[in-house]
Amino acid sequence: MYSLLADLSIVEVSSFVASPTAGLYCAQMGAEVIRVDQIGGGLDYDRYMRTAQGRSLAWENLNRAKKSVALDLKSPEGRELCVELACATGQLITNLPEKSFLSHAAVSVGRPDMVSVRIMGWHDGRQAMDFTVHAASGYPLMTGPAEWDQDTAPPVNQVLPAWDFITGAYCAFALMAALHHRAATGEGSEVRVPLGNVAMGTVANSGAMAEMLYRGADRPRLGNAIWGALGRDFVSRDGKGFMVAVLTPNQWNALVEAFGVAEPIAALEAETGVRFANSDHNRFVHREALFDIVQSAAARQDYAALAERMAAAGATFEHYRTMHEASTDPVLVDENPLFGPSPANPSGLSYPAPRSFANLPGRDAGDPEAAPYLGQHSEEVLAERLGLSSGAIGDLVDRGIVARSDEHDFTPREARAR
Amino acid sequence: MYSLLADLSIVEVSSFVASPTAGLYCAQMGAEVIRVDQIGGGLDYDRYMRTAQGRSLAWENLNRAKKSVALDLKSPEGRELCVELACATGQLITNLPEKSFLSHAAVSVGRPDMVSVRIMGWHDGRQAMDFTVHAASGYPLMTGPAEWDQDTAPPVNQVLPAWDFITGAYCAFALMAALHHRAATGEGSEVRVPLGNVAMGTVANSGAMAEMLYRGADRPRLGNAIWGALGRDFVSRDGKGFMVAVLTPNQWNALVEAFGVAEPIAALEAETGVRFANSDHNRFVHREALFDIVQSAAARQDYAALAERMAAAGATFEHYRTMHEASTDPVLVDENPLFGPSPANPSGLSYPAPRSFANLPGRDAGDPEAAPYLGQHSEEVLAERLGLSSGAIGDLVDRGIVARSDEHDFTPREARAR
Repeated sequence: MYSLLADLSIVEVSSFVASPTAGLYCAQMGAEVIRVDQIGGGLDYDRYMRTAQGRSLAWENLNRAKKSVALDLKSPEGRELCVELACATGQLITNLPEKSFLSHAAVSVGRPDMVSVRIMGWHDGRQAMDFTVHAASGYPLMTGPAEWDQDTAPPVNQVLPAWDFITGAYCAFALMAALHHRAATGEGSEVRVPLGNVAMGTVANSGAMAEMLYRGADRPRLGNAIWGALGRDFVSRDGKGFMVAVLTPNQWNALVEAFGVAEPIAALEAETGVRFANSDHNRFVHREALFDIVQSAAARQDYAALAERMAAAGATFEHYRTMHEASTDPVLVDENPLFGPSPANPSGLSYPAPRSFANLPGRDAGDPEAAPYLGQHSEEVLAERLGLSSGAIGDLVDRGIVARSDEHDFTPREARAR
Repeated sequence: MYSLLADLSIVEVSSFVASPTAGLYCAQMGAEVIRVDQIGGGLDYDRYMRTAQGRSLAWENLNRAKKSVALDLKSPEGRELCVELACATGQLITNLPEKSFLSHAAVSVGRPDMVSVRIMGWHDGRQAMDFTVHAASGYPLMTGPAEWDQDTAPPVNQVLPAWDFITGAYCAFALMAALHHRAATGEGSEVRVPLGNVAMGTVANSGAMAEMLYRGADRPRLGNAIWGALGRDFVSRDGKGFMVAVLTPNQWNALVEAFGVAEPIAALEAETGVRFANSDHNRFVHREALFDIVQSAAARQDYAALAERMAAAGATFEHYRTMHEASTDPVLVDENPLFGPSPANPSGLSYPAPRSFANLPGRDAGDPEAAPYLGQHSEEVLAERLGLSSGAIGDLVDRGIVARSDEHDFTPREARAR
């Protein structure tokens, strides 16, 4: 953990992926992130993958390095504590609806400098999740094999919840932008980020919306090929699949050299009357012929030899891994300073723990911290932030408004529900 | 455009998607973002989709609301101007390699408070792009129809360059975090964000890496089904595909009500001995039986009626659109305050222009601004930032070190290369 945000405290009232991710990025930069949950766990406390004991490995990784406060958020008293905590802290990240008890108006009473960041569904208040905004965006009907018939091809959903992760990072940015503004002016901010607008805004920012309107029609299906440039998956003699991307003159020269295809390329240039070295456009238009040339060359060698040649030539490539292979890849994990030693995770399992995506040369990256047990910091936070005495907290615990750590008091949801 | 970052200036030396996106998000929040490019355009100046004239709609949207300075970055003098500009400004976003002329050391000479954010390929210096880190991550081999044989299924690439967009948003956050630290301590920061680490870190943050290691094997292929919960695409009687997501008790109750399937669900609960209302786990384990029940009900009604029932019941759903349909959808675009009137785009085309993903109630969102012509602000920026006289700038222009706006001086790359 770096300490860029060491003086910053944030209350996070979250579930699922986008909202916890925003808090996670701040925590990995040194902020104190206090996640407040329903006693027994919120909607995401049991998200797959779960261990045999029922501990969620998703929750344990999305809430790394945070503190946990457990309150009965169904009770007026628990809600009031949550509102007071957010207000006293001055910074809030949440995905609760604006119409919930945790509105910006509620948390900014007497506190005009309050900064809240709220993740919503659609701009008009309709519900949305990553899966549904993706369906609306158009991407699933552009994904999948090129040979599928355009008119009957089924949608192909993404396994990576990309909209959640873009939204999480964007919300961390928006929070910091609002804090920057507060530092300059003293003003608070209410920031709302609809997940649906992250998707539609990205379609627009990427140029794809302008493309659709300019063409007046959808883009043809491209399968695994890169749009508007040269790149695709190829297969080596020993059956290993790999991706090669060519978007610069250097990448083109590397491709020609690595695959030893200068001759057939020259023949194709003579035949077509175009030059490939300096034009994405020409490489894209003639991609099928170029793909054939590269695939023919790829099929004559094993991957290890090809990879050596591509690396030496300076090509941009990567072989396809399964996720288990990626997770056990020495270069990607063991030798990667992104990962540190396993802290004591709530699951009791040990595995490589990620630091922040960013690294800062000359600064101590520290070791990754574990996610909390649910309620582990209830007493500490209520005492420090709201000035509650241990007697008052004990009373709240006795009355079921506050809960302490579930380290020794955990039951999976199915057992709790019975 | 909001004005949260109105007092902030950033020099961006960028190409492709991740790095320009980081600058774009800052510009949409009111920062002055000065993009510096090679005269005639950098590596991404011709990225598809291009208009008949050859103007890139990708570039025009990824560089909205920025200023443009065009320099000969192949010449020592142009490079020196770029370094001076970054140093004088104090904030830099770039994807040039650390070993280029634009190292952190170079731009922080005499300026210990310099903040630079550098997007890299892999952590170990190997090249990477969205397409290649995705191949490494494991997602492409988890994507695609469930019925494909696990051992022979081809990779399915993503059309959305998700890693680029997550990286862009994260870099905007990391920049603001470093500025927050500088405001508190006076210290500058060198921030490096490897695209590959955004991918591997996300695999870890999502819990998927822990999942792979805990299971000791890959996740089975799920096609369009949601992992660990209930959700999939269904098809209505009139052939319309739609996605439904059920991850909460409310979403479950809405599904049962909207599709009128209380009876078969009760029968399935009796048969299996489990309750579905409060358990993602139970709904996931019995998903095939549940999918059959929902699909049977879906097939009996047209989508319009189903959508009305789902909306009334409070289900989370969305029908699949092609991207052209999404881009012309009145609710998603015309009636969405995300989009404003078209500014005067370099392409000469008019189309809805996005604001920031975030909206801030009570603050003026302003109208979206256009991307610059290449070099449009060369003179203004060199005069203001480096104090160059108009005579000195004229001399630099005459010698080809600096270029002015390409509004009337644009030729597509293929024509330039000849």
